Amino acid sequence: MTGKPLEKSATDRPAQRRSKLLSLIKKAGLRGLLVTNPKNVTYLTGFSGDDSYLVVTPEKTVLLTDSRFTTQIEQECPGLPYETRTARKPMAELVGAFFKSSGSLSLGFESQHVSFALHQDWANRLKSITLVPTTDLVEQLRCIKDASEIAETREAVQMAQRGFEVVKSLFVPEMTEAAIAADLEHAMRRFGAAKVAFDPIIAVGPRAALPHARAGNSQLSEAGFVLLDWGASTPKGYKSDITRVVATGKVPAQIEKAYRVVLAAQLAAIALIRPGASCQAVDTAARKVIEDAGYGKFFGHGLGHGIGLDVHENPRFSPISTDELKVGQIVTVEPGIYFPELGGIRIEDDVLVTKDGHEVLTSLPKSFEEFQVRR
Amino acid sequence: MTGKPLEKSATDRPAQRRSKLLSLIKKAGLRGLLVTNPKNVTYLTGFSGDDSYLVVTPEKTVLLTDSRFTTQIEQECPGLPYETRTARKPMAELVGAFFKSSGSLSLGFESQHVSFALHQDWANRLKSITLVPTTDLVEQLRCIKDASEIAETREAVQMAQRGFEVVKSLFVPEMTEAAIAADLEHAMRRFGAAKVAFDPIIAVGPRAALPHARAGNSQLSEAGFVLLDWGASTPKGYKSDITRVVATGKVPAQIEKAYRVVLAAQLAAIALIRPGASCQAVDTAARKVIEDAGYGKFFGHGLGHGIGLDVHENPRFSPISTDELKVGQIVTVEPGIYFPELGGIRIEDDVLVTKDGHEVLTSLPKSFEEFQVRR
Repeated sequence: MTGKPLEKSATDRPAQRRSKLLSLIKKAGLRGLLVTNPKNVTYLTGFSGDDSYLVVTPEKTVLLTDSRFTTQIEQECPGLPYETRTARKPMAELVGAFFKSSGSLSLGFESQHVSFALHQDWANRLKSITLVPTTDLVEQLRCIKDASEIAETREAVQMAQRGFEVVKSLFVPEMTEAAIAADLEHAMRRFGAAKVAFDPIIAVGPRAALPHARAGNSQLSEAGFVLLDWGASTPKGYKSDITRVVATGKVPAQIEKAYRVVLAAQLAAIALIRPGASCQAVDTAARKVIEDAGYGKFFGHGLGHGIGLDVHENPRFSPISTDELKVGQIVTVEPGIYFPELGGIRIEDDVLVTKDGHEVLTSLPKSFEEFQVRR
Repeated sequence: MTGKPLEKSATDRPAQRRSKLLSLIKKAGLRGLLVTNPKNVTYLTGFSGDDSYLVVTPEKTVLLTDSRFTTQIEQECPGLPYETRTARKPMAELVGAFFKSSGSLSLGFESQHVSFALHQDWANRLKSITLVPTTDLVEQLRCIKDASEIAETREAVQMAQRGFEVVKSLFVPEMTEAAIAADLEHAMRRFGAAKVAFDPIIAVGPRAALPHARAGNSQLSEAGFVLLDWGASTPKGYKSDITRVVATGKVPAQIEKAYRVVLAAQLAAIALIRPGASCQAVDTAARKVIEDAGYGKFFGHGLGHGIGLDVHENPRFSPISTDELKVGQIVTVEPGIYFPELGGIRIEDDVLVTKDGHEVLTSLPKSFEEFQVRR
């Protein structure tokens, strides 16, 4: 009996991505691309170290690195050609040596991931190379997730959700925001997370009015609700990003009302998510629900963003976004209402754009009552 | 009875730092400096959020930010003038508005912390301003720590050391590197750490040959020793950075010998630390001990680096360093020997340069025997 046909090995994915990138490089009229954004290097190679650049040309791809990483490279991306530099040798010399016999040429560089100073250094050292600024060449590939990336994101969501359930089960009135953050991180690691996707925002009561509050010494007993905005990063670096508000005691009527408005806004926006939908329209749908409830001025940030190797990626949901949704994108939808002094509400889920519409990857309950925590 | 004379409030420190920076700005012939490195913004203001720039001029300092951070600014740096932009308004417009009535002028920018793309955008939008690249203006202030920063670093060292003691007390043969990393982080948070200073390197046996090994699924029982390289970050962002190797079972004779060589190298280097000492000479002292033992080719990285708001700061100990030590610097001293396949040894302490020489801030024992862990 023969088995199912072998699927293309997942280890080929970086090669597939490089091949797509080469089409973009060619289209841009470039001889090659010097990839300096470490997340892009990871995406194109599987190598997860840092301080390393990737040169991609039609003939050859080479990772420019140093001796600290050689064993790691052989483990993470066996077969990928690499060159190591010593501490005395600037990276630009490796780049120069690579193109030595090529005569004059146009080499693209990632203009948002190269500092002004580094560009100056290169321009001085690489006289025969014309450095051409590029934007988002790799990022435009990254924003469409392949099957392995979707699977990784599902893992990241599960790690975050299971961590949340653990920490919620630990709630006692004396528990501080900082303790919640620590226990949440520890629990996510138990479920396989390599680390947090970002410093968790844990904000008791009035502190939830700060969209970027740090976990501090406020205790759960100091208010009737707590906001948690957290995520996990898988060992391969894929992120989840979730926000929930938990009622832990008496909730001010205005907060309870805001909760219902935010939830309605979020559901209205999610309902619009499908291939071809305008990101501005999705943002507007949520914003309109909040404005109609009279809370427009209390929602000051964009509705959401892509997630992947970075916790903030394209596309962006905002009033000025020109992005259009595509199959394979994974986005957050996170409207919020923030009352200075009183506190804030934000609800955030991670949503995959599918051929037929969307799939909400997060599954933690969202009705306020379900979160009522007994002391 | 009168109390002790009031010490100058610690909240004045950012103002003191800005005043020192203004001398450097003046010396550089600039009208002002646009500070974009978030660590530098924190250093000069106390504000710990991100996405915010600081404009420093002799007449006025202003933080350019957005509405997410207003409450945080009022808490962390009360009295500091700030301007908020909306999502529709690029940061460059705020900068332009600030200098509107000033006519043509030379504004410094941090060339290592501004991308090529952002500089291009500014150059296009700020026609009347000459943008002048600067390097390390704030960093040269940051590398000398004031009393509050030294106290913060002592805290970071204590958090890391107490976390280490907890995790070592938890060692069992089945414990994985990832579990050690998770428990270490959790323990440091219990002692007040805001987070890890960097992803801890936890490497069992042969994996310790990778200077940047990730904590993985190897168990303590798989070898006779484990290397831990970890640190804590205080809530204000100051870092510690320590490495220890723990003998957990039978240690190969070559590793044991390497341990003694690395320790001798480290002590030789630390002995030279004093104001005016050349960083190259300190590096050489350690390197010579390792070379004399015949292990020169197994020590491929620099001897150490400054720590502070960043885990890698100036000065640097390396064969090509031109830095000279100054009172108030805090540096790591971390020689290593790495045998491919067999494993590696690194020992790292944090050392303050004092008027009379130095003070080793870390106090965890370093003789290999003391670390023998019974199963």
